[in-house]
Amino acid sequence: MVKDILNANEQMAAENKLLFEKRDIIAINIMASPGAGKTSLILRTIEGLGEPIAVIEGDIASTFDAEKVGEKHVPVVQINTGGACHLDAAMIKTSLEKLSIDKAKYLFIENVGNLVCPAQFALGEKVRVLVASVSEGDDKPFKYPGMFSTVQAVVLNKMDILPYIDFNVARFMEGVRAVNREAPVFQVSCRTNEGMGEWIDWLKKIGS
Amino acid sequence: MVKDILNANEQMAAENKLLFEKRDIIAINIMASPGAGKTSLILRTIEGLGEPIAVIEGDIASTFDAEKVGEKHVPVVQINTGGACHLDAAMIKTSLEKLSIDKAKYLFIENVGNLVCPAQFALGEKVRVLVASVSEGDDKPFKYPGMFSTVQAVVLNKMDILPYIDFNVARFMEGVRAVNREAPVFQVSCRTNEGMGEWIDWLKKIGS
Repeated sequence: MVKDILNANEQMAAENKLLFEKRDIIAINIMASPGAGKTSLILRTIEGLGEPIAVIEGDIASTFDAEKVGEKHVPVVQINTGGACHLDAAMIKTSLEKLSIDKAKYLFIENVGNLVCPAQFALGEKVRVLVASVSEGDDKPFKYPGMFSTVQAVVLNKMDILPYIDFNVARFMEGVRAVNREAPVFQVSCRTNEGMGEWIDWLKKIGS
Repeated sequence: MVKDILNANEQMAAENKLLFEKRDIIAINIMASPGAGKTSLILRTIEGLGEPIAVIEGDIASTFDAEKVGEKHVPVVQINTGGACHLDAAMIKTSLEKLSIDKAKYLFIENVGNLVCPAQFALGEKVRVLVASVSEGDDKPFKYPGMFSTVQAVVLNKMDILPYIDFNVARFMEGVRAVNREAPVFQVSCRTNEGMGEWIDWLKKIGS
């Protein structure tokens, strides 16, 4: 039954993907642990990218993130999964009925905070991005290889607090490379805006 | 089918619970986001509690945590779920075949780092403890009410980095109390050992 659910999801994800491609929208699935900084990254990216953006916010409960994004005057819709530990392609399809994407060039989809389940469910995205934060520890790529291996880019956030915690950037990089040879790793602080330039450049490159 | 799986788990969890009660073992299910400090809390508790402890370490992959605990010379076994996003009662039952619990008064079970799925699977524990860290943000109780409502205690970790981040303790407490009226919240730093006394006292109380 789990396999059937995954297959049904793959099929609907393919439909979403086709829709995004037809409309020339770059859909980006943003995944992370709770509190790693997915919303902060989206907010900074809205400021820095200078392209029309729409956002889907996924959470088990609450509408805080959609409210924050809405303050930036971009189209946004909140999905509350009500307990489910990940978004799925059907949720994305339904949410598009309520989201104005006609003018968007980029669609950021913020997944539920979870380093496990979201990796198993395609949404129709063009790329998958993982936000990791230095406060989570440098061993995470070794512990969550499924997530770290499936993404096309890693954003290592909260670099501003590096002096106050125990985190070895070289060990983290070693862990990423053990499961993912290609994904660029952007070292940033969404709080201070440090390091956002390379991330923005990468987004522009995948959108051109 | 999901309901059947949950029912089968409940039944096996009840068997585990009976076994622990017969042997006078306090089993504690420790849950948290990835990197909140579950292992660090267990290591500090081994140092401070002064009672015989055994540990079950749950991770999707790797044996780092079991190795760290093993250095403290307590019985420990590692469960690798191989992809599953939570421990279940059957995994605990199987792991007990490899773990010497004859002398243990407390059994700490470190769950997979995940604020969603572990809350739905009883393991046979006497109490559930959530480790939250200030670096995850003060909105987490509002976003993960299922997890915050199910626990008998919350350990708020990484208080040593509070001056360097945006985290409102009062807002966090408000969120906890919105879904959980009774659980004590212990503000600690496992890095500096700050605040561990009250947590240790609470453990002694539930064990007496």
